Amino acid sequence: MALNFDHHTLGQRVYFGAGRANEYLKAALKDLDSKKVMVIASGSALRAAQEIAAGVEVAVWHSDVVMHVPLASAENARAVAAKRDIDVLVCVGGGSATGLAKAIALTMGIPIIAIPTTYAGSEATNVWGLTEDSRKTTGVDNKVLPTVVIYDSELTLSLPVEMSIASGLNGLAHCIDSLWAPRADPINAALALEGIRALAAGLPKIMNNPQGISGRDEALYGAYLAAVSFASAGSGLHHKICHVLGGTFNLPHAQTHATVLPYVLAFNAPFAPEVEKRAATALGSSTALEGLQKLRTQLKAPQKLTDYGFSAAGIPEAVSIILENIPANNPRPVTAENLTELLEKALVGAEPA
Amino acid sequence: MALNFDHHTLGQRVYFGAGRANEYLKAALKDLDSKKVMVIASGSALRAAQEIAAGVEVAVWHSDVVMHVPLASAENARAVAAKRDIDVLVCVGGGSATGLAKAIALTMGIPIIAIPTTYAGSEATNVWGLTEDSRKTTGVDNKVLPTVVIYDSELTLSLPVEMSIASGLNGLAHCIDSLWAPRADPINAALALEGIRALAAGLPKIMNNPQGISGRDEALYGAYLAAVSFASAGSGLHHKICHVLGGTFNLPHAQTHATVLPYVLAFNAPFAPEVEKRAATALGSSTALEGLQKLRTQLKAPQKLTDYGFSAAGIPEAVSIILENIPANNPRPVTAENLTELLEKALVGAEPA
Repeated sequence: MALNFDHHTLGQRVYFGAGRANEYLKAALKDLDSKKVMVIASGSALRAAQEIAAGVEVAVWHSDVVMHVPLASAENARAVAAKRDIDVLVCVGGGSATGLAKAIALTMGIPIIAIPTTYAGSEATNVWGLTEDSRKTTGVDNKVLPTVVIYDSELTLSLPVEMSIASGLNGLAHCIDSLWAPRADPINAALALEGIRALAAGLPKIMNNPQGISGRDEALYGAYLAAVSFASAGSGLHHKICHVLGGTFNLPHAQTHATVLPYVLAFNAPFAPEVEKRAATALGSSTALEGLQKLRTQLKAPQKLTDYGFSAAGIPEAVSIILENIPANNPRPVTAENLTELLEKALVGAEPA
Repeated sequence: MALNFDHHTLGQRVYFGAGRANEYLKAALKDLDSKKVMVIASGSALRAAQEIAAGVEVAVWHSDVVMHVPLASAENARAVAAKRDIDVLVCVGGGSATGLAKAIALTMGIPIIAIPTTYAGSEATNVWGLTEDSRKTTGVDNKVLPTVVIYDSELTLSLPVEMSIASGLNGLAHCIDSLWAPRADPINAALALEGIRALAAGLPKIMNNPQGISGRDEALYGAYLAAVSFASAGSGLHHKICHVLGGTFNLPHAQTHATVLPYVLAFNAPFAPEVEKRAATALGSSTALEGLQKLRTQLKAPQKLTDYGFSAAGIPEAVSIILENIPANNPRPVTAENLTELLEKALVGAEPA
C-alpha cells in the first residue's frame, strides 16, 4: 500500500527520571541561559515547586492559577512577566498551570519549561486555550509548545490511584483512537502503540503498588505519548462519541471514555486489521479487544453508561449529533444503525464484539 | 524498571507521498510565505528538480553541488543567497545537496525544504559538515535542521536496486544499533523498531519489483526513521566496529555494515532480551537474528569480510582500536576475547549465534 501523510513533529527536549526534576531543571535553565525565572504553580503545587526549584534563583513565584485560564488571569500574569523581564517560564502542576504558561508565551514568546504532575498532556502540545465570559477559545501556535518538558514520576505519587487509573485509561483512549483519527499516520501510530504498551504495563502496577516508581514511570511516559499522538492525529470516532455524551448529556469525562473505548475498538477493529494486530501486540494479547478487556478487568474499569446517567431514551439524539461529526477516514462506515447498536451495547455493558 | 532519559525531538514537518513533491513543495512554500526561492540541485538532479518546481517562481537555480561540502563551495552559495535575498532554500538530491543547503542555513538562518532522492537521511538531522584542506568539520545546530522534508518515492525509482538494498541495509543497521547506542531511549527505540518494520517490508519488494511504489515507499520511510533514531541515539557497538574497519582497513562502507550487523546482533541480543523480542516482532520472526538472516538471504546480502579485503592478520589491531571506543552502556561487556571471536566469525561468514 502506498504511504501518504503530512506529519508535524513538534521539537522538544524531554527529560525523564524519577526524583530528578531539580537536577534537570538546573540543566535546562543553564542550557537556555536564563536570568529571570518565573515559576507558575498553584497553591497546592507550591511546595513541590519549591523543592524542584531548590538552588535556582527565582525572580517571580506566581500562584494565581485558575482552571480553563480566564483571560484576566492570563493578562495579569503577562503584566507580571513583562514588568520583571522574565526570560523563562517554569510551570509545575497539571493542565491549568501549563495552560497559564502557554497563555503568557502566546503573546510574549517566552520559552516554557513544563514540569507536569498529572497525565493531562498539555505540555506535549502546541494547543492553547483561554476563557472569556465563560467561552473557551482554543488555538494552535508553536510559540506555546514548551521548549523543555521534565517528567519526574515522584511528583505523580500523590495522584490518587483512582484518578491515576481514570486518567491513564483516558490516555489509552487517546492512543487507540489516534490509530484511525483524521490525521492518523504511521509515525503517530508507532508512538501511539508505544504509549499503549507503556500504559498497559504501568497502570496495573499502580493499582497493585501505588507508591512504586516503575508503574508511575510507565504510566507517565505512556500519558506523554498519548498526548503526542492525539495532538498529531486529532479526534477519532471514540472522541466524537464521548464529546457528545459529555457535552450534550453531561456524562462524566473519564468514566465515559473508559466505558466507550472497548465498543469503539470492537466496532473498528475488523476494518483496520493491520493496526488491530499491532495494538494486540502492544497489549500483549492475541487480539486488541481481548487485551483491552483483560486490562480493564484488572483495573476495575467502568462497565456501562447506565451507571453514569445515560439512558436508552438519549440514544437517538446522541446518534444524530454524532453522525454529523464522523471522521471521513474512519475505517468502518458509520450508520445510524450500527452507531445505535454500539451505544445500546455500551449503555448496558454488553459484550462489545 | 525505572525510566531515565533525555530525548531531543527535532521539530519538522514531514510530507510523504509518491508523485506529490510538486504539490507538497507549493504548499510548503505558501506556508513559509516565501518570496525568493533558491533551488539547490546538482546537474544530475536538475531535471527532477525542475519538474518538482514546476509552477514555482525560482529566484536562483544553484547546481554547484560538491561531495562533502567544500568550504569554498559553501561560501560561494552563501554569497549568491545573500545577493539575491533568498528566504527559502529548496534542496533536491542526496546528502551533498542537503549538506550544501545546511552550510548556507548555518550562517544565514534561512529555512530549508529538503527533497531527498536517496536514503542518506541527512534531511532528518541537525548535523552539518564542511570540508577545508581535505579535513571535514562537523557540528550540530538546530538552524540546519530542514523545516520541511518532502519524501516522494517516485524520485527514488532511479536508484539502482543494488544501491537501494545496500543503503537500506545501512538504514537497518542504524535502527538496530540505536537500540543500544549511547543515547538509546524508549522513544528512539519505538521509532527504530518502526524503521526496522518498514525496511524489512520494503527492501524485498524493491528486489522483486524495482519499479513498484509500495516497496520504495516503505524503504524511504524506513530510511527516514533510521536517520531520526540514529541521530538521536548515536553510534553503538556496530558503528564503532564498522568505523574502524572502514577507517583503518579501508573496507567498503555499505558491504561492511551489511556483513557485520548479524554478528553484533547475535553478540548483544542475549544481553538485551526486551529489545531483542521487540526487534523480532518488527522483523516478523521468532528471534531478531532469525528475522535478520532471512531478510539478508532474500536480499542476497554480503556474507563475509574476506570478500572485502579484510584478513585474520588485521583482527588484533582492529580489536585494540575498537576496544578504546566501546559505548559504556553496551548491553554486553566487550572484551578483547569476545570481540576477536565476533570478528573471526564475520571474517569467514560463520554462524553468528
